Amino acid sequence: MIDKSSSMQQIIDFILEIDKLKKVTRKIRVRGLDRFENPAEHSWQIALLASSLAQYAEPAVNLNRVIAMLLVHDIGEIDTGDTIAFVEGGWDKRKAAELQAVKRIFGMLPGKRTEEFLSLWQEFEAGETPESRFANAVDRAMPVLLNLTNNGQSWRENDISYERVVRRVAPQIKAGCPALWEYLEVRLDEARAKGLFGE
Amino acid sequence: MIDKSSSMQQIIDFILEIDKLKKVTRKIRVRGLDRFENPAEHSWQIALLASSLAQYAEPAVNLNRVIAMLLVHDIGEIDTGDTIAFVEGGWDKRKAAELQAVKRIFGMLPGKRTEEFLSLWQEFEAGETPESRFANAVDRAMPVLLNLTNNGQSWRENDISYERVVRRVAPQIKAGCPALWEYLEVRLDEARAKGLFGE
Repeated sequence: MIDKSSSMQQIIDFILEIDKLKKVTRKIRVRGLDRFENPAEHSWQIALLASSLAQYAEPAVNLNRVIAMLLVHDIGEIDTGDTIAFVEGGWDKRKAAELQAVKRIFGMLPGKRTEEFLSLWQEFEAGETPESRFANAVDRAMPVLLNLTNNGQSWRENDISYERVVRRVAPQIKAGCPALWEYLEVRLDEARAKGLFGE
Repeated sequence: MIDKSSSMQQIIDFILEIDKLKKVTRKIRVRGLDRFENPAEHSWQIALLASSLAQYAEPAVNLNRVIAMLLVHDIGEIDTGDTIAFVEGGWDKRKAAELQAVKRIFGMLPGKRTEEFLSLWQEFEAGETPESRFANAVDRAMPVLLNLTNNGQSWRENDISYERVVRRVAPQIKAGCPALWEYLEVRLDEARAKGLFGE
């Protein structure tokens, strides 16, 4: 008999619930495949981007907290789907739905883990600590880096202009990792000259 | 002009290189989809399983190190592919190939990051520290948990017997997270009674 109330069972139920994040689709296609990237593999990749870039965080950050934040930051999309990154407006409503989702999902865990994960999620969303600013920079930069090597795939497929990309990613990347923005600014200019954007 | 020798460029090259892990296939299919799971999303999931289960690690572990290990432990599969988890024999040769792969891939990074990632990878493989024992327990347990909810999909598709699964996962799970083994042992017995294994 499975004791549904045991902490171990609650943890197993949680880990099987978050398995669903592998089915959510983002707008970027995996290079060399036709399928869309999912937020689970994206979260793994940006955790490693944060680790690799940590020397460029300004101010210095607690990298472990950044990684913990990145691992949980997209879990609300299990209920809401990937909110289209470049849609403007309706942001507050979508974020409220994501908050409700993470409360449900993190609430499956026993003890203090629920609050810990929720607090990481909220810190990421607020973007006020050095850790969350760096985490947001890395999160915004990754699809740009992929588009730059993928012929602007998600920009072109969704008809996203250069100006819109810059408006969407520049403030966060500048705020959390200025050296990364310095690098990307030049690449984005080159991409514009090559016609990798929509509109 | 891209300065190929800059640290920033080396980090970007690394993060685009490890993007390839999203294309490697494991034996488990994503629940509700036809495609096979990849080691990138798997690594994300077990990092969160480790976080959720940390209270059950025996002895207590440095969770941040466990997570760092889990994020890099499969990266060698970019060159070697997923070594079939239940093949017996040829282990040393496959591990030597994976070591060569991670030396190449982590070697793309600037400064001390190469050594840090390599050291995490080696610690995981050696399985001698409490952190690496817990990390190995979580890594072995995840496909079992997925098979238990997926009608034994990868066991049946690859004709893997109950005995083979237990031989492959029990020692590591017992060593790193005894409470998790206690939980799984009962479930595996139930699964055998239901005929979820091959052979």
